[in-house]
Amino acid sequence: MDQRPIGVFDSGLGGLTVVKELVKLLPHEDILYFGDTGRVPYGTRSPETISKYAQQDIAFLRRKDVKMVIAACGTVSAVLPKEVVKGFSFPYSGVVKPAAQAACAASASGKIGVIGTSATIKSGAYGKEIRSIRSDAIVIGNACPLFVPLVENGFIQPDNPVTRMVAQQYLKPILENGVDTLILGCTHYPLIKPIIGELVGEDVTLIDPGKEAARGAAVLLQSQGLLSGREQAGELHFYVSDSTQGFEQTASVFLHTDSVTGHIEQVDIDSL
Amino acid sequence: MDQRPIGVFDSGLGGLTVVKELVKLLPHEDILYFGDTGRVPYGTRSPETISKYAQQDIAFLRRKDVKMVIAACGTVSAVLPKEVVKGFSFPYSGVVKPAAQAACAASASGKIGVIGTSATIKSGAYGKEIRSIRSDAIVIGNACPLFVPLVENGFIQPDNPVTRMVAQQYLKPILENGVDTLILGCTHYPLIKPIIGELVGEDVTLIDPGKEAARGAAVLLQSQGLLSGREQAGELHFYVSDSTQGFEQTASVFLHTDSVTGHIEQVDIDSL
Repeated sequence: MDQRPIGVFDSGLGGLTVVKELVKLLPHEDILYFGDTGRVPYGTRSPETISKYAQQDIAFLRRKDVKMVIAACGTVSAVLPKEVVKGFSFPYSGVVKPAAQAACAASASGKIGVIGTSATIKSGAYGKEIRSIRSDAIVIGNACPLFVPLVENGFIQPDNPVTRMVAQQYLKPILENGVDTLILGCTHYPLIKPIIGELVGEDVTLIDPGKEAARGAAVLLQSQGLLSGREQAGELHFYVSDSTQGFEQTASVFLHTDSVTGHIEQVDIDSL
Repeated sequence: MDQRPIGVFDSGLGGLTVVKELVKLLPHEDILYFGDTGRVPYGTRSPETISKYAQQDIAFLRRKDVKMVIAACGTVSAVLPKEVVKGFSFPYSGVVKPAAQAACAASASGKIGVIGTSATIKSGAYGKEIRSIRSDAIVIGNACPLFVPLVENGFIQPDNPVTRMVAQQYLKPILENGVDTLILGCTHYPLIKPIIGELVGEDVTLIDPGKEAARGAAVLLQSQGLLSGREQAGELHFYVSDSTQGFEQTASVFLHTDSVTGHIEQVDIDSL
C-alpha cells in the first residue's frame, strides 16, 4: 500500500479529462495535478522545447513525492524520448501506449486513424507503437492544430458550424482511407467527440487515450500493490503555472462537474 | 547619431509586421528582433504572467545594447503597467498609444472599435488611451481569441470560409454600434485585413497599430538624433525562444517577403 498521491500533468487543463477518469476508477486515491497554463500549448512547439518543459513538469511532481507520474498530454507522450522515460526510477505512463493497445484491440481491418497536435503527428509515435503491436496495421495520421483553440474558446456545441467545418477539413484524409478506428490523440478532443463521431460515422470506433491511460494506471497500481488502501475519498490538489483565476470555471468543463473542489495553487515552473 | 540596433519584441512572430514597416521607413537601421516562440501566445494569459514575460524579453534586448525598445505586441502594450514603463531609462514604445492617436485622428464620429486578444480587451488600455486624447469618444471592444490560431495555421485566404464565419461572429457587436474606425489591436490581424475590411465595409477606417508604432518610432529616433546616419542597408538579427527550425518560412509570411535574410538564433529566455 502506498498513500502518496498519483501525479498527473498536462500542458494545460485538457489533462483533467484523465483526472476525471482516475477519480471514477480509483476514488480513494489522492491526485496531484499540474497544468502548465503559463506555457500552454505544447503541440505547436519543437520536440526539444516540449521535452524540456515536460521534464520540468515531471521534476515538480516528483518533488511533491507522487507515487506515479501520468503524462496526460498527447504531445508529451508522443515526443518525450524513450531514453528519457527509460531513466525514470518511478512508475510512469503516457497516453500513447495504452491508446495504441486499445486501438489495435478494437480494429478489425487494421486501418487506424490518429488525430493530434502538429508535434504529435510529426513524431510518428502512434504509428510506431501501433506497428510494434500489430505489424500489419496501416496508420493514417492528420494534425488538427485548430481543435485545441476551438475547444478552449468554447466552440464545442455539437452543432457549432465553425468547429464542424474545421473538423470536416481535418478528417477528410482519414475518412478517404477508410479507417475503422480513430484515436483522439489529444486530451482536448473528447470534448468535441459528438462532432467527430458524427462526421466519421458510427462504424468507426473512437479511442480516448486519456481514458485508456487512466485504466492502465489503475491496473498498474493495483498489480504493484501501490493503491492507498484507504476507505475515505481521495483529495485533489491542482497546481498551475499561470494565475489560478478562472481555473475553477475552465476546470469544470474538463472535469465534467458543476463545482471543482480541492486545493488550487500557482507555481513558478521555470525557476524551480 | 547612434549606431546601435533598434530592439523589437513580440510574444511570437506577429511583431515582424512592425519590422517590415521599420525596414521600409528606416532602411539604414539595424534591427534586433526577439520572438518568444517558446511561450507564445501571451493574449490568453494573466496580466501578471504577461508582465513577467515581457520584462524578461525587454531585459534580453537591453543586454544586447539596443538604443530603443518597441513592444510590437498588442497584448504587452496593453497590459504592461504604466509604472513599469515609467521606470525605463531608454526610449520605449508600445503599439497602443500610436494606434489610439491615429484612431482619434481618423474618426469623425468618435465611435471607435477595438479588436484584440482577450488580455488586451480585458485591460481596457485602448479605451483609456483614446479617452485621454478625446474625452467624448465611445470605444467598443471585442476579444477575438481565435484570430491568432487561425492566422498561424494559414487560414488567411480572403475567401476562407472558416475565418469569415469566425470574423462575422466577432465583428457583430462592433458593427451593431456603428463605429467609423476600427483598431486591429494585435499584430496578427493585418494578415486577415481583407476579410475584416470586407465585413466592416469601406466606410470604416482600419488602423494597423504596428504600422503606427513604426512611424512613431521613426519620428522619435529622428527627433532625438538617434538615427544611425549610415548609408548602407541595416542588418536584421532574429532571436527566438523555441527552435529556429521553420522560422524563415513563418517569418516570410509576416515580413511579406520571399526570403528572409539575417542572423537567426535561439535563446533560453527563462533562464537568462
